[in-house]
Amino acid sequence: MRIGLADTTFSRVNMAEPALAIFKGKTVERYTVPGFKDLPAACKRLLTEFHCDIILALAWVGKEDIDETCAHEANQGLILTEVLTGKHIIKCFVHEREASGDQKKLKEIAVDRAKKHAENVLALMKGKETLTPFAGKGLRQGSLDAGGL
Amino acid sequence: MRIGLADTTFSRVNMAEPALAIFKGKTVERYTVPGFKDLPAACKRLLTEFHCDIILALAWVGKEDIDETCAHEANQGLILTEVLTGKHIIKCFVHEREASGDQKKLKEIAVDRAKKHAENVLALMKGKETLTPFAGKGLRQGSLDAGGL
Amino acid sequence: MRIGLADTTFSRVNMAEPALAIFKGKTVERYTVPGFKDLPAACKRLLTEFHCDIILALAWVGKEDIDETCAHEANQGLILTEVLTGKHIIKCFVHEREASGDQKKLKEIAVDRAKKHAENVLALMKGKETLTPFAGKGLRQGSLDAGGL
Amino acid sequence: MRIGLADTTFSRVNMAEPALAIFKGKTVERYTVPGFKDLPAACKRLLTEFHCDIILALAWVGKEDIDETCAHEANQGLILTEVLTGKHIIKCFVHEREASGDQKKLKEIAVDRAKKHAENVLALMKGKETLTPFAGKGLRQGSLDAGGL
Amino acid sequence: MRIGLADTTFSRVNMAEPALAIFKGKTVERYTVPGFKDLPAACKRLLTEFHCDIILALAWVGKEDIDETCAHEANQGLILTEVLTGKHIIKCFVHEREASGDQKKLKEIAVDRAKKHAENVLALMKGKETLTPFAGKGLRQGSLDAGGL
Repeated sequence: MRIGLADTTFSRVNMAEPALAIFKGKTVERYTVPGFKDLPAACKRLLTEFHCDIILALAWVGKEDIDETCAHEANQGLILTEVLTGKHIIKCFVHEREASGDQKKLKEIAVDRAKKHAENVLALMKGKETLTPFAGKGLRQGSLDAGGL
Repeated sequence: MRIGLADTTFSRVNMAEPALAIFKGKTVERYTVPGFKDLPAACKRLLTEFHCDIILALAWVGKEDIDETCAHEANQGLILTEVLTGKHIIKCFVHEREASGDQKKLKEIAVDRAKKHAENVLALMKGKETLTPFAGKGLRQGSLDAGGL
Repeated sequence: MRIGLADTTFSRVNMAEPALAIFKGKTVERYTVPGFKDLPAACKRLLTEFHCDIILALAWVGKEDIDETCAHEANQGLILTEVLTGKHIIKCFVHEREASGDQKKLKEIAVDRAKKHAENVLALMKGKETLTPFAGKGLRQGSLDAGGL
Repeated sequence: MRIGLADTTFSRVNMAEPALAIFKGKTVERYTVPGFKDLPAACKRLLTEFHCDIILALAWVGKEDIDETCAHEANQGLILTEVLTGKHIIKCFVHEREASGDQKKLKEIAVDRAKKHAENVLALMKGKETLTPFAGKGLRQGSLDAGGL
Repeated sequence: MRIGLADTTFSRVNMAEPALAIFKGKTVERYTVPGFKDLPAACKRLLTEFHCDIILALAWVGKEDIDETCAHEANQGLILTEVLTGKHIIKCFVHEREASGDQKKLKEIAVDRAKKHAENVLALMKGKETLTPFAGKGLRQGSLDAGGL
C-alpha cells in the first residue's frame, strides 16, 4: 500500500517530519502545495495519478477570519475528494486560534497532531475495525484525550 | 439486507452499544474512524466496498466553534454520499452544546438518540411508507417528542 | 407523470394532507423519513427508484441555531439532487422562527405554504413557461404576496 | 446559439423585460420558477433538455437572514451546474438589503443589473477574450463602475 | 504545457499583467469574465475545451459582506473544479478588507500576490515536490513571509 503525504509552504511548522518518522519503512508519495486550499487538488492527484491508497493532509490555518473560511473550503474539498474516490484523507489541521500567540504551544500541537494522525493512517490501513476498541474513548490529537464518559 | 454502523474514537460515549442491541439478529458491518469528519469516507466505503444498504453514522461534536464547523462539513459530506449512492445514512449527531457541562445528561441524550435512530434505520429498511403514520407528529431523538400541532 | 411527496416525522404539522388534496387524481409516491436532513436521500430514491418526475419536499425546521444549520444542509442536498437529476424538488420549508412561539400562526403558514407549493408543482409539470405570466409579481407562499414594484 | 433566461415569481421586478430587449433577435428559451432556490434545476434543464449554450439567471433576494441563506444556496447550486456542464450561468441577483426600504432605487438596481448582465451574456457568447480589454477596470452592474486603481 | 489565466472585469487592478510577465515564453490561454463567481465556469472551460494543464485564477473581492459570501462560493466552485478535473487552479484572491480604504496598499498586495502565485503555478508544473524544500516555511503571497517556527 502507498501513503500520500500532502503539505503546504504556508504552514509555519514542517509537520511532515514527525509524520514521516511514523511512516518509516512504508512507501510514501509527498506533494507540497502553496496553501491549504490547494490540498484537495493535490490529494485527488495523489489518489488517481500517484496511486495512493490513503492520505495524510497537513494544514496550518492562520488566525484571521478569512483563514477560517479557507479552512472550511479546504475541508469541504477534501471530504468531496474522499467521497468521490472512496479513500480516506486524514485531515490534520492546526489552527493558530487554538493557542493564540503562543508559538511554542502551537508547534507542540502541530507535532503531536501530525504524529497521532499518522498513527491513525496506519490503523485505517489495517482494516475498518482496527480502531473499534477505541470507539467512544474520547481520543484527541494535539492535546490530551478527553476520555469516555 | 446489510446495515453499516460507522463511529469514531473522538466520541466520549460508545453509542454503538445501544445501537447494536437494537440491531440484534441483523447483519452489521462496523467501521470506526478517528473523527466525525472521517465518517463520509467510511460510509462511502461501507456502501460500495462492504455492500451495506443503509447506515447509522454516530458522531459526537465538541463544544468549540470549530467543532460545530466540522459537524457542518461532516453532514454535508454524508448527505453528498447519500445523494450519490441513493442510500440512507441516518446521521446521529450529539453536540456537547446541547447540555453544556452536564456529562450525565449528554450521555442520556447520546444513548436515547442512538437507540431511536437505530429504530429509524430498521423502519426505513421496511419501506418508504413505514414511518408515514408518524408524519407530522413532532418525533424527537435524544429528548421527549415535541408532538404534533 | 408521477409526483413524489417527501415528508418527516420531525415536523409538527402533517403538511402532506393539504398537499395531497391539491394533488387529487394524480399519481403520488410518498416517502416519510425521520428528519429533514434525510430528505435528499429520499428524494434521490423517489426520482431514480420510484420514477417520479417532480417532488414536493415538506420540511419543518426547529427554532435552535442547529436546526437552521441542518436546514441549510438539507437545502444544499436537495439542490444537489435537482442538479444531478435535472428534476425539480420544490422545497417547502417552514421555520419555527418565522412565528416565534405562536403555534396557531405556524400551522397556518405550514398549510398555506404546502398548498401553494403543491400548486407550483402542478404548474411546473405543465411546462417551463406556465408560471411566466407571474414572473416578477412578488408571489409568496405561507403569507400574503409582496406584489410587484 | 441559444440563450436561456431563468426567472422567478418571487421577484418583485420583472427583470426579464429589460434583458429580453437586449437579447432582441436572438433565440431565447425562458423558464419561470417559483423561487430563486429553484433556479439551479431550471438552469440544468435549460442546458440539457432545451439545448441552451449560456444562461442569464434573474433572482430577487428578500431582506431577511433566511433569504440571504437561500441566495447562498442558490448560488452554490448555479455554480455547481456551471462546473458540471461547462456552460456559463450569469447570476444576476438583486438583494433587498442593497437599498433597504427604497423601492424606487431597488427597481433601478434591478433593471440596470439585468441589462448589463444581458450584455455580459452576449459578450461571453462571442469568445473568452471579448471582455479582456475591460479586465481590472472595476466594472459594476446595478451601480456606477468602481473603476481601476 | 498550457497555462490558463482567468480574470474579471470586476477587479480594480489588472493582475493579469504582472502574472503574464512571469509566464513569459509559456503558452497561456486567457479568459475574462464579469465577476469572480463566473471564474469556476471559465476555469472548467479552460481545462476541458482549451486544454490547459493548470490555471491561475485572479479575483478581486469587494468590501461588503455579500462580496465575502460570493468569494466563498467562488472558492467552493473552484475547488470543486479542481477535484473533478484533477488539475490545480491557483486561487489568487485579493480582499478589499485586507487594507480597508488604502488603495495604494491594495494594489501592492494585488501585484505581489499575482506575481508570487504565478511563480507557484510554474513550480507546480515542474512536479509535486518542487515546493517541498519550502514546506513549513510560512511563505505568504501579498505580504512578507510569516516564516517557520
